[in-house]
Amino acid sequence: MQLLASYLSGAWAQGSGGRTVLVDPTTEAILAEVATGGHDLAAAFAYARGTGGRELGALTFAQRGALLGALAKAIHGAREELIALAIANGGNTRSDAKFDIDGAAVTLSHYAELGAKLGAQKLIGDGEPIQVGRTARMGGQHVWASRRGVAVHINAFNFPSWGLCEKLACALLAGMPVITKPATATALVAHRLVELFAPLLPPGALQLLVGPAGTLLDHVGPGDVIAFTGGSATARTLRGHARIIAHNVRLNLEADSLNAAVLGPDVELASEAGGLFLADVARDMTQKTGQKCTAIRRVLVPAERLTDVCDALRERLGGIAVGDPSRDDVRMGPLATAQQLADVRAGIARLAAATEAVYGGTGEIKPIGVPDGKGFFVGPVVRTTATPLDCAPLNEHEVFGPVSTVAPYAGDAAFAAEFIARGEGCLVSSVYSDDRDWVAAFVGAAAPWAGRLFLGSSKMAAQSPGPGTVLPSLVHGGPGRAGGGEELGGLRGVQLYLQRCALEGDASVLKSLLG
Amino acid sequence: MQLLASYLSGAWAQGSGGRTVLVDPTTEAILAEVATGGHDLAAAFAYARGTGGRELGALTFAQRGALLGALAKAIHGAREELIALAIANGGNTRSDAKFDIDGAAVTLSHYAELGAKLGAQKLIGDGEPIQVGRTARMGGQHVWASRRGVAVHINAFNFPSWGLCEKLACALLAGMPVITKPATATALVAHRLVELFAPLLPPGALQLLVGPAGTLLDHVGPGDVIAFTGGSATARTLRGHARIIAHNVRLNLEADSLNAAVLGPDVELASEAGGLFLADVARDMTQKTGQKCTAIRRVLVPAERLTDVCDALRERLGGIAVGDPSRDDVRMGPLATAQQLADVRAGIARLAAATEAVYGGTGEIKPIGVPDGKGFFVGPVVRTTATPLDCAPLNEHEVFGPVSTVAPYAGDAAFAAEFIARGEGCLVSSVYSDDRDWVAAFVGAAAPWAGRLFLGSSKMAAQSPGPGTVLPSLVHGGPGRAGGGEELGGLRGVQLYLQRCALEGDASVLKSLLG
Repeated sequence: MQLLASYLSGAWAQGSGGRTVLVDPTTEAILAEVATGGHDLAAAFAYARGTGGRELGALTFAQRGALLGALAKAIHGAREELIALAIANGGNTRSDAKFDIDGAAVTLSHYAELGAKLGAQKLIGDGEPIQVGRTARMGGQHVWASRRGVAVHINAFNFPSWGLCEKLACALLAGMPVITKPATATALVAHRLVELFAPLLPPGALQLLVGPAGTLLDHVGPGDVIAFTGGSATARTLRGHARIIAHNVRLNLEADSLNAAVLGPDVELASEAGGLFLADVARDMTQKTGQKCTAIRRVLVPAERLTDVCDALRERLGGIAVGDPSRDDVRMGPLATAQQLADVRAGIARLAAATEAVYGGTGEIKPIGVPDGKGFFVGPVVRTTATPLDCAPLNEHEVFGPVSTVAPYAGDAAFAAEFIARGEGCLVSSVYSDDRDWVAAFVGAAAPWAGRLFLGSSKMAAQSPGPGTVLPSLVHGGPGRAGGGEELGGLRGVQLYLQRCALEGDASVLKSLLG
Repeated sequence: MQLLASYLSGAWAQGSGGRTVLVDPTTEAILAEVATGGHDLAAAFAYARGTGGRELGALTFAQRGALLGALAKAIHGAREELIALAIANGGNTRSDAKFDIDGAAVTLSHYAELGAKLGAQKLIGDGEPIQVGRTARMGGQHVWASRRGVAVHINAFNFPSWGLCEKLACALLAGMPVITKPATATALVAHRLVELFAPLLPPGALQLLVGPAGTLLDHVGPGDVIAFTGGSATARTLRGHARIIAHNVRLNLEADSLNAAVLGPDVELASEAGGLFLADVARDMTQKTGQKCTAIRRVLVPAERLTDVCDALRERLGGIAVGDPSRDDVRMGPLATAQQLADVRAGIARLAAATEAVYGGTGEIKPIGVPDGKGFFVGPVVRTTATPLDCAPLNEHEVFGPVSTVAPYAGDAAFAAEFIARGEGCLVSSVYSDDRDWVAAFVGAAAPWAGRLFLGSSKMAAQSPGPGTVLPSLVHGGPGRAGGGEELGGLRGVQLYLQRCALEGDASVLKSLLG
């Protein structure tokens, strides 16, 4: 049995103490083990702050961008191997695996290009020069400077490749060394990525801790940044962590999100916008078995279309074969872990007590090509409620699986925006309408509650990436329940790892500092 | 005895329960009282979210800017009255009082102008349109949208006028209703300001709570923003507050800051840059009796100039008359409260154990024109240490009074930046040099540790506002110990009260949304 090693202080080292197993969620076969501790984390932080910080700090943005380009290339070179690991350890279909792995490469390439654009400098200007004295001689100029410290990345189980790389790209481009901690259950892909990446990066730029976080956060200080993706319970623990509070450590959280999709009152289901809406809901429910932080959990449709929408979803979901994700005829695999299965079942039960069934009952299913009683499977489930604003289980609890609830409304934009707001902050929500005035009214009221709003329409349907796809050029994060953080969005995501500083002085000196 | 009323849910109402007195820190005469509670804060939050949010949400940025212009005008109209209150309740000299009150008006006017520039819109574009599909038709556009919720402002005792207005200007311009809570000890100025402002603003836009915060924060939710200025102990309490954590409430903190001033190795004291350096250190020590979050606490000078710098400071500080701040011949008044006096004395004692005296002993003084034994007075104190990087009391504890420590160094820019870093994050630090290469090396290494860097030089000396003056056009805030927040800086400070949202869809729809 392989005991996965961590990569700390420039060397691969297995942990010691109790062990946790990594399994194939389809068969429950054990794939590898991790040990719970025994690493010298203080040394790892010192190595990052010393060697890693010095090495990255000596590079310009363009040079750091070139490093990211090399990482993207490394992913391309090992693509089939990574896909196989994701199928085995993540329960991904081949399509799911590509979504994660190609998404990682695209993101690294985006930031490689941004680095090239930023060029041979080490400070980034923020806004125009400002006159702050009586004459133009006395000026101000905001700049972004690399933070001196460690970027600690705590990633979720669902995107071991993309999650690692989207955080890594921004931190390395900013010049911050990274200690990355993948979710234990699906760590095989992340482990392989770091094996591929480490030889391509300067010493200290990237370290990997596999297994439980242990005392990882007891080493953070005021110059560090923690970026976390995962559940709201862990996010709450991080926000309340004594050392993070004591040192005011910068913390970016991406947690639960009750993303909604709203069908505008003008849209016929047979139209291009209507087809896009149905395709997005069905895909978001089943892609990665609904284990996407951007998946659609809540659906609002004009009351007169409720029956048609439910029928159309029944038809689309009925065509999704569930089972062994390595098979070509299977479209949806298992959940990633036994715990996730238990959580999703509990979530469905909570929903079932407050909603009515539309499709899939409570998710019982006989998966294709799987030994009897094995695997963490649940089938697609659609529920409905007549009272979407007041259905607490719908608006307050994210069910992290192939589960959505459809509800009717009268077509009012303000009501639709209020429905978004009841999620108390989401990563993304989507609306499908060709009525610009209606969309404008909706956007103004819904935007404060979403990190991203996807505006589906007939005109863009043919080339839409869908609301569930996170793009490196647009911010990923959301207010309130979604964590209040921001990642990606081009330079915006890099700013998490930079400090904004207002420079004040002789205008010609300020100009010369920006080169 | 006046019992100060709060302004909540559209009416002035006195609290009930135990009382706290507001005194004149020069004579310890009681000026007014506040009661500890008895207010219906849930109703106040509902009034802000309902009435206040609706009223402000109906206005464009330009219309909200016009409101701020009216507030600035109201300050100008009541200037002498406000100055008198600041002298009586704050221990301010007339010059100190003007610094606070005129600073408030300037900041309101700055944001009034920004509102006019933003114009008749309700969404602000963030960056350029982005192509996210195969063709230019599928686009992305980041926007800033007004948050729906309440801005809760908790202000410090030292700037009752400026502190209230700098937070208020940004929140109101963003369209968020405000509940403001001044520090109890110096609440008379804030109370009078709200009396002046309330009739000029829409219902629900501004509410005032005088006295202890009580259960104020038990009412915050996911759409709200809390902006706090004050000590690091309270800041830590806020970060760990159960409700703030549970709802991921956006929190902006401005706390302790160990600001430094560095004299470059090229600067002769007799030069313009040298004169600016000495004037800035002496002013920052004594203006508002050193009770400025931006005041210079730590001073680094080339070893060969240490004696001359200490002599020059002795001479300048020797000319500062300390006593009753209402007298024309007095240049420095008392500290604001008995507690502050006790804290400053404890801080001086801590410093005294690790440093040597240069001037003022441990701050004992006989104030001019004050009854024997009355008032919260301390004299200017200069200390020195030969080991600035390792002097923990110097680098870890802010003494919030007229106290500075001067230390020698060899003139190395990296050492100077490391000295800045030892403060673990500051609001502002300053450097005085005409050597551009030296300044560039310093800025690159120091910028990650400061919200603002003031670059003093001979060329700008004649029109320098000094590092201690916070300008509305430059960000105010700092990393780490300074709280990790950002206020002001033009639109940057308004963004605290806005939500960034990535809009994704048909490019022509996105364009039409921004008008």
